[in-house]
Amino acid sequence: MTAFSYQLQATQNNARAGLLQTPHGPVHTPVFMPVGTHSAVRTLTWPQVSDTGAEIVLSNSYHLYLRPGHELVEKAGGLHHWMNWHKPILTDSGGFQVFSLAKHRDITPEGVYFKDVVDGKKHFMGPKESMRIQNALGADIIMAFDECPPGAVDYDYAKKSLEMTHRWLEICFAHHARQDQALFPIVQGSVYEDLRVKSVDFVSQFDAVGFAIGGVSVGETKMQMNQVVSFTAPLMPANKPRYLMGVGTPEDLLEGIRHGIDMFDCVMPTRVARHGSYFTPTGKKIIRNAEHKEAFSPLVDDCACYTCQNHTRAYLRHIFRMGETTAATLLSIHNIYTLVQLAKDARAHIIAGTFEDFYQQRMALMGLTPSLLSAP
Amino acid sequence: MTAFSYQLQATQNNARAGLLQTPHGPVHTPVFMPVGTHSAVRTLTWPQVSDTGAEIVLSNSYHLYLRPGHELVEKAGGLHHWMNWHKPILTDSGGFQVFSLAKHRDITPEGVYFKDVVDGKKHFMGPKESMRIQNALGADIIMAFDECPPGAVDYDYAKKSLEMTHRWLEICFAHHARQDQALFPIVQGSVYEDLRVKSVDFVSQFDAVGFAIGGVSVGETKMQMNQVVSFTAPLMPANKPRYLMGVGTPEDLLEGIRHGIDMFDCVMPTRVARHGSYFTPTGKKIIRNAEHKEAFSPLVDDCACYTCQNHTRAYLRHIFRMGETTAATLLSIHNIYTLVQLAKDARAHIIAGTFEDFYQQRMALMGLTPSLLSAP
Repeated sequence: MTAFSYQLQATQNNARAGLLQTPHGPVHTPVFMPVGTHSAVRTLTWPQVSDTGAEIVLSNSYHLYLRPGHELVEKAGGLHHWMNWHKPILTDSGGFQVFSLAKHRDITPEGVYFKDVVDGKKHFMGPKESMRIQNALGADIIMAFDECPPGAVDYDYAKKSLEMTHRWLEICFAHHARQDQALFPIVQGSVYEDLRVKSVDFVSQFDAVGFAIGGVSVGETKMQMNQVVSFTAPLMPANKPRYLMGVGTPEDLLEGIRHGIDMFDCVMPTRVARHGSYFTPTGKKIIRNAEHKEAFSPLVDDCACYTCQNHTRAYLRHIFRMGETTAATLLSIHNIYTLVQLAKDARAHIIAGTFEDFYQQRMALMGLTPSLLSAP
Repeated sequence: MTAFSYQLQATQNNARAGLLQTPHGPVHTPVFMPVGTHSAVRTLTWPQVSDTGAEIVLSNSYHLYLRPGHELVEKAGGLHHWMNWHKPILTDSGGFQVFSLAKHRDITPEGVYFKDVVDGKKHFMGPKESMRIQNALGADIIMAFDECPPGAVDYDYAKKSLEMTHRWLEICFAHHARQDQALFPIVQGSVYEDLRVKSVDFVSQFDAVGFAIGGVSVGETKMQMNQVVSFTAPLMPANKPRYLMGVGTPEDLLEGIRHGIDMFDCVMPTRVARHGSYFTPTGKKIIRNAEHKEAFSPLVDDCACYTCQNHTRAYLRHIFRMGETTAATLLSIHNIYTLVQLAKDARAHIIAGTFEDFYQQRMALMGLTPSLLSAP
């Protein structure tokens, strides 16, 4: 895996700034990764994604396996050529969707039988299959196939699930066939500290480029999630990037970075944009609201995103109300830019040694109580 | 109206190449104008519209009057600032939509009472109101308020309607209040040659920057439309641009240009894109079709549009089938580019004296019989 390297460049308490090199270019961490579920980021073209400052995007193996099929993407020359994004890509394993979206699941020691909710067809996916699919897709970073139990799972289930996830991880490494792709193990263990510790110990045995924390933001409370992250992240190998899967909001990024997380992804910025919500330093706002009717100023003053540089809230409100999907595009650009830029700002503050002030200030602006966990 | 000028640069038979100067820049004719009904071109941002090569766009006074209201657009500094498009804009008068979309119409000599289909509220619009609205919106080119009867209208109705439209034209010129906007009269008269001749005679009295043909593509046959255009266009002032309203398809552009039309607009390229259709030199095709499943080549070979330069039919088919609006964006870019470029190609051929060959060749590629009307 010579194409990959990670350099830890600066730390402030648990917060870290780093540089991950991949075959398709650098990723400066902390980083937010926009999601293109079906190999497209909703309502955006790739130049629009790139213009947000995004350095790496995520796509979903489960969806691509079912449609258009990983063989077709492979025939196209892999995911970078298929979707025409030539910077780094990360694919998830399919595990999360198999467990959360598919119907009639039947879990075996080798993997999971499931039915496609679209056409009812039966499929099987396990660690071997996930590796074959992700090797075919050809993303720079691929993820171990794991079980991701819901947030409210009991201890016994979490323990057994974790043991299976660990067995599957060995199978993943045995079947992962490409040196130009980095396989990230995933720490599971639900909300149970001893299981998380055990999981970190287990996955750390593998000589991986980076490691992930899974099984968060799956139904547990925010407090539980922050607790898991705060005690798990510092245990993970310091010289490797740490990816917190499926997270999150601006406040989640701030918390995660503070606890030592380097990589984040979430569909939320584009999803809420399609429903007319946008991020501001003081929290989410709704573009439909009458307060914006004659607002000839941007979504956020001083925001450097394309949308804020070019359009007023009055115009965005109008075209959103008229059902123009251009409004969803423009709000998505702003929301993704906001998260990408938040991670970049955090990075700059970590390097400057001012991250804790930045964190306190941003949380206060949102009217949120700074976490008491792992205070500096 | 010193900000405007029109120079007829070349002709081949009835076909014309010209240059229209407006306060917001030049328009090289023949030209296709994309439509942004609600002050946004469906699924596109303005840089995407601009990248198609579009020099001028159209927006609809009826829609903008109802929502967000012309006063709000005026407060924003006019339509150019409102929507952040700083090249030429044309607004229609609202007449077409009042007659085609609104409910419970009551036509009086001063204008039309109608109900907004969205909220049922009663409104009145006549030539005075249309001028006030269009002056407030501030487009470079504004249109006379006319009645646009459906294609199947009888002679007596067409005659009476035309007389009213001519009276309204005088009111429009009397109330048009801005020298930086060019008011285009509209030739009506349905499918009746004597009425069209009468209308050309009447509107030509006005010292206008340009003239339009209305009342086409409203339910009459293609043959009837081509007949109207072929006998009407050559009668119109030769030293002024001629705008064929609401037209059209690639073949309509070729026919219209051949008969001496300089300007076109239509919502069709973006509308069919949202339904998955795209233009090719041999006709419209459907991206969903199985033939594109493994097609790792562009929509149209050698097409220089963003979509064809960056994406394959296989990818576009997949994301369209997944319901990604990015597919509508990419097909809209291609379709608008195709019409804009078709007009540019026609212009180059007119200047080179090769338009008739170009016309014959393009019609043959589409499998269409070239019109026998006004053969060279």
